[in-house]
Amino acid sequence: MRITPASELQNRVHALQSLMQEAGLDAVLMLQSADLFYFTGSIQQGLLYVPDSGDPIYMVRKDYTRARMESGLKEIVAFRSPKDLPGILADFGRSMPKTVGLELDVLPVSLYQRLRKVLGDAQVGDATHLIRTVRAVKSEYEIEIMKDAALMVDQVCQHAAEIIRPGMTDLELAAELEFTARKKGHQGITRMRGFNSELFYGHIFSGADSAAPAYLDAPLGGIGVNPSIGQGASYKRIEAHQPIIVDFAAAFDGYLVDQTRIFCIGELPADLQKGYDDMLAIEKHLKQIARPGISWGDLYESCYNLACEMGHKEHFMGAAGAQVSFIGHGVGIEVDEYPFIAKGFKDQLLKEKMTFAFEPKVVYPGKGAVGIENTFWVEDDGLKHITFTREEVFIID
Amino acid sequence: MRITPASELQNRVHALQSLMQEAGLDAVLMLQSADLFYFTGSIQQGLLYVPDSGDPIYMVRKDYTRARMESGLKEIVAFRSPKDLPGILADFGRSMPKTVGLELDVLPVSLYQRLRKVLGDAQVGDATHLIRTVRAVKSEYEIEIMKDAALMVDQVCQHAAEIIRPGMTDLELAAELEFTARKKGHQGITRMRGFNSELFYGHIFSGADSAAPAYLDAPLGGIGVNPSIGQGASYKRIEAHQPIIVDFAAAFDGYLVDQTRIFCIGELPADLQKGYDDMLAIEKHLKQIARPGISWGDLYESCYNLACEMGHKEHFMGAAGAQVSFIGHGVGIEVDEYPFIAKGFKDQLLKEKMTFAFEPKVVYPGKGAVGIENTFWVEDDGLKHITFTREEVFIID
Repeated sequence: MRITPASELQNRVHALQSLMQEAGLDAVLMLQSADLFYFTGSIQQGLLYVPDSGDPIYMVRKDYTRARMESGLKEIVAFRSPKDLPGILADFGRSMPKTVGLELDVLPVSLYQRLRKVLGDAQVGDATHLIRTVRAVKSEYEIEIMKDAALMVDQVCQHAAEIIRPGMTDLELAAELEFTARKKGHQGITRMRGFNSELFYGHIFSGADSAAPAYLDAPLGGIGVNPSIGQGASYKRIEAHQPIIVDFAAAFDGYLVDQTRIFCIGELPADLQKGYDDMLAIEKHLKQIARPGISWGDLYESCYNLACEMGHKEHFMGAAGAQVSFIGHGVGIEVDEYPFIAKGFKDQLLKEKMTFAFEPKVVYPGKGAVGIENTFWVEDDGLKHITFTREEVFIID
Repeated sequence: MRITPASELQNRVHALQSLMQEAGLDAVLMLQSADLFYFTGSIQQGLLYVPDSGDPIYMVRKDYTRARMESGLKEIVAFRSPKDLPGILADFGRSMPKTVGLELDVLPVSLYQRLRKVLGDAQVGDATHLIRTVRAVKSEYEIEIMKDAALMVDQVCQHAAEIIRPGMTDLELAAELEFTARKKGHQGITRMRGFNSELFYGHIFSGADSAAPAYLDAPLGGIGVNPSIGQGASYKRIEAHQPIIVDFAAAFDGYLVDQTRIFCIGELPADLQKGYDDMLAIEKHLKQIARPGISWGDLYESCYNLACEMGHKEHFMGAAGAQVSFIGHGVGIEVDEYPFIAKGFKDQLLKEKMTFAFEPKVVYPGKGAVGIENTFWVEDDGLKHITFTREEVFIID
């Protein structure tokens, strides 16, 4: 178990403060769990006040003592409600900010309205983009944790190769793999930032189920165990010559990696094997062009065009009618971080030490889906693998 | 796997419509997953429009066909963005509403702002209270599903009694119990409505860890596997004569039950056993006074006062400084539903067919925590058990 070093927190706060100064924000107020973990090292019921310069103040209701133990921040104070904000700032010799950034993409309206009252005449802006921009670029420390998560997801795949057998249900397979990861310290919760977005370890499904569309912003969906979940593993039984998708998010010490591998009892049907080889070729193409400075949108377009040239336009990144317009997504504390390797985004550039999952996938309606997914970090000379499991289809005898 | 019957959906919509008419709302627009599941039977990327009378319209972006398969609603239409709302309403011969209720407790500000534009001059109010009020009272159909979930949580406890042994970690125990539930169809995701609230199957911890406070609005917290989770099982090893908490949320076919039982290798220390007996007595007291018509707040106060008379004021419902001001919470699709058996709430009354978990718990700092939790439904003559596992401490030889 890691406690985030104070120097990490300091670097993160400084990076945010320099973006705040550019944006003309006097302060950013944060409440969301993932952001609190990133900037304080400790998720509590609290309010993090980051001024445009100087020390941030973490105001904590529950549990204050725990925050003092876990967080490397210097200024942690007990508070009861946002109404205490002006008083606490005054104690630190600070006046109320005139411009404040909030996490408007995740803050619920009712909570926002209560905060708004406390902020008086201050002008309120959206700090989401600044926060996500800072979080997208990882430190060595963060990448090391993600490498540990990659070990976990590799063990999950090795275990899958040992236990897959005809007649077991997708749910049984999922349960076994989740159990494997959990025993090794998987944190259970897979954080997503998007409203209504949720993920439980990942997506384990086979055959036609893997071609079923679902509500989640993901290329594949799955049937799920019931319509209240509506994604992921179902009670379908695994048969020979069907693709079995093991798309697994390993979450360890606060960080995620995302990896997909294909398993099959016997050979894949020839068209699906061809599709899989094409997806590998798209990954290879990505590695040739991904360098710091290229735009997220250009990366997407180039890979998307290649998929179309290969004849996959109708079923690339989802069943027809349920296709998503991205091929990759940042991962870190959340599974839907910056960068988005997605349509548009021509002004957003890849930077060194960004980490993202790239997942070209193609659907064969009624038969299944195939694809590859790895998590990378960006270096000056190109992408480096964080996930490293061998990429061939795992053939089960 | 159950598909929600159309008659269920109809009754739910009618119940909401009659509250809307009292509140003077022309329409309610819903987007949140749990609410969509309750009112449509199918969670999709969509917008549910409920007029104050007549058929609701479920507008679905992804996946439309799946919504048509899963939902028993009559009117399901494809749409691309909230901007399509006026056109779709016009197609149904409806004008734009003048007063609209939204889920302001969960809707993020950015999303709200986009919706607000589409709604033009309409007056927007908060529909949260109406929605939660309808959802609090369950149908026979819903209670039947919860009884299935209660079977699952009983099996989890029986399995715990078989596998607990000295030296195993809390995490190993949690992993085993989660695996047991998952194989039986646990849906994985445990829904919570509150901002930042999250729960992974429940809380499995032992000894002093069970007395550790955490951010979650719950009497007990636990250390967790890392500070990014900060609750639940940790790597602590189980020892004899320590309370082992198995607080497990079984989620099946969309519905939850919540149950806590205490396990111990050998006898509990005498003070903790006495505390446990007191918590059982508080549960017994609850059963004597809980009838339709009593207020949530009066239930709380009466049980809280009894705990204080027993000498538990300082450590009832949490470690000193981290106590919560509730003893029970509604459960159903989410684990934090109405009713709140909590301080205040003198105007909110218990009603027939409400379902809630009641969890008197007491903390012994440095030693651990004990308590009982069951999920009940309310009948005219009192509470009925949904969870039914035997209530004595499970002593492991």
